[in-house]
Amino acid sequence: MNEFSYIKKYIHPLDHNSLIGNDAAQIANLQDKLIITKDILVEGVHFLDNNDPKLLAKKSLRVNLSDIASMGIKPYGYLLGLILPNNITNKWWKEFTSGLKEDNDQFNIKLIGGDTTQNNNNSIIISITAFGFTNNTSLTRSKANVGDYIYVSGNIGDAALGLLAYRNIINNKHCSYFKNKFDLPNPRINLGLLINDYNIASSCIDISDGLIQDIEHICQSSYVEANIYIDKIPLSKEAKIILNNNPQLLETILTGGDDYELVFTSHPKNHIKIKDLSSKIGVKVTQVGYLSIGNNVNIYNHNNQKILFTKKGFQHFSN
Amino acid sequence: MNEFSYIKKYIHPLDHNSLIGNDAAQIANLQDKLIITKDILVEGVHFLDNNDPKLLAKKSLRVNLSDIASMGIKPYGYLLGLILPNNITNKWWKEFTSGLKEDNDQFNIKLIGGDTTQNNNNSIIISITAFGFTNNTSLTRSKANVGDYIYVSGNIGDAALGLLAYRNIINNKHCSYFKNKFDLPNPRINLGLLINDYNIASSCIDISDGLIQDIEHICQSSYVEANIYIDKIPLSKEAKIILNNNPQLLETILTGGDDYELVFTSHPKNHIKIKDLSSKIGVKVTQVGYLSIGNNVNIYNHNNQKILFTKKGFQHFSN
Repeated sequence: MNEFSYIKKYIHPLDHNSLIGNDAAQIANLQDKLIITKDILVEGVHFLDNNDPKLLAKKSLRVNLSDIASMGIKPYGYLLGLILPNNITNKWWKEFTSGLKEDNDQFNIKLIGGDTTQNNNNSIIISITAFGFTNNTSLTRSKANVGDYIYVSGNIGDAALGLLAYRNIINNKHCSYFKNKFDLPNPRINLGLLINDYNIASSCIDISDGLIQDIEHICQSSYVEANIYIDKIPLSKEAKIILNNNPQLLETILTGGDDYELVFTSHPKNHIKIKDLSSKIGVKVTQVGYLSIGNNVNIYNHNNQKILFTKKGFQHFSN
Repeated sequence: MNEFSYIKKYIHPLDHNSLIGNDAAQIANLQDKLIITKDILVEGVHFLDNNDPKLLAKKSLRVNLSDIASMGIKPYGYLLGLILPNNITNKWWKEFTSGLKEDNDQFNIKLIGGDTTQNNNNSIIISITAFGFTNNTSLTRSKANVGDYIYVSGNIGDAALGLLAYRNIINNKHCSYFKNKFDLPNPRINLGLLINDYNIASSCIDISDGLIQDIEHICQSSYVEANIYIDKIPLSKEAKIILNNNPQLLETILTGGDDYELVFTSHPKNHIKIKDLSSKIGVKVTQVGYLSIGNNVNIYNHNNQKILFTKKGFQHFSN
């Protein structure tokens, strides 16, 4: 079967709205702003070789939905770019598109177009453009204020531990839990929407590069300094167990990335409102620190001492 | 210099509107429809190895602008996805982004975001998403009518001959002309806009896969049959010369692709209006045939005899 046949067989059935079939897709909207993002995933770089096609479809899509969520907007749809080696099978197409279909339904989003092309080597590359519309303002990284509290959703570090599990660097009974967290992020669409609608967040970002590095992005854009308390960082019980036995994994947890949780900042007056919202939508939200004057990201241990990390990208801690 | 440094040095200066820097870009618009497309170009598949980075930037962008033009819409901006090998140099970044800058200015479009990532082999892959807004309807492939005339813009086949020139299959004094046509398509934005605004076109497509195959896309979507006269197909004087000496190149010219001219259909009553519009905007527009009942694409020679092509993708001609 050639590429056109695969597209006809597997992609067109995803297009309930007949948006595919012209040179570009047309989407009617009554909102006045477009929010749009593009994230590329490369086999062997962003995901493992021989990845389960269904999980791969979902992760590629969800990292883009997470970007839209971090702007405080509901995703509307996406364009799918697939760069595929010659040896892609019917089974791969079937499973990959079934993953898309499940997530289209779960997140109520539409595939509205894209491009599929052949790679001249054996890697799968997935380039998705996701977008949403709004008549609200969107959340940015640049409006955090000195004195704001810093919050994160969910737990931190499980996905980074999942990558270690896939690489056989850790090996215990919790590995399948961690691997699942690496494979299947959960974009925090409702949380992003609500903290935007209720004007709660002064800034927001999703954690793709690692908690510290992504907080650093907020600090750089907003000209503020972050103070983070290790003890406050929310960890799964599985991560706590493994960290207890392997304290050196703390750096992986804080810098490993792939969490796709939200970090946002908010004036202290909103603290109760945030707790209420968190219980209302059933998403754990934890205050992990506060912003001060400066431009560093300071990490404190349980003795209130600054911790320095050696990992590349964070050399400024050792100044 | 690492990827972040290149982006800061070369991509950020292209962003006059401070649209880059968050997880997604926000674009205000007062129009009610979004027109959006994604085209991927892979080194060694869609462009030659060691391509001039400036021309590569322009071609990657222009094939996307051509898609928006074929919908009858003015492009607004684009997201840039770059998947790059490790050996990309400062010189490459400089030239590639200077190409983008020139075309941003020429077509009055904005770079509004994107993603840059590392490839795990030596190919350059460019994945661009371009879009525009409108409160008009957009042109499609599916509303052509029996009796409509078929028109094409510009000349056909120069780009396909350019590819033959690059491959040293043809070699004469016109080769640099043809190569330039392959490297630098000219998206027909004004023409697309006007035939849409004036309600002249019943359908439209841009020629990326080859004149015959793209007309076939209109036929399949609109349930019509196309009748094309070889003698009417507009050729450059350079193409005429080479075709005179090498009549076997006719198939390349009609099926080779990469023209990025528009094919559109229109009721015969609009013929004079189309001629006027063509002279007004200085873009050659030529009637090459008409639509009838059926679903084939018939090509006629100067003796009004059907011509059959053997090229893969057109086997139905030999029925």
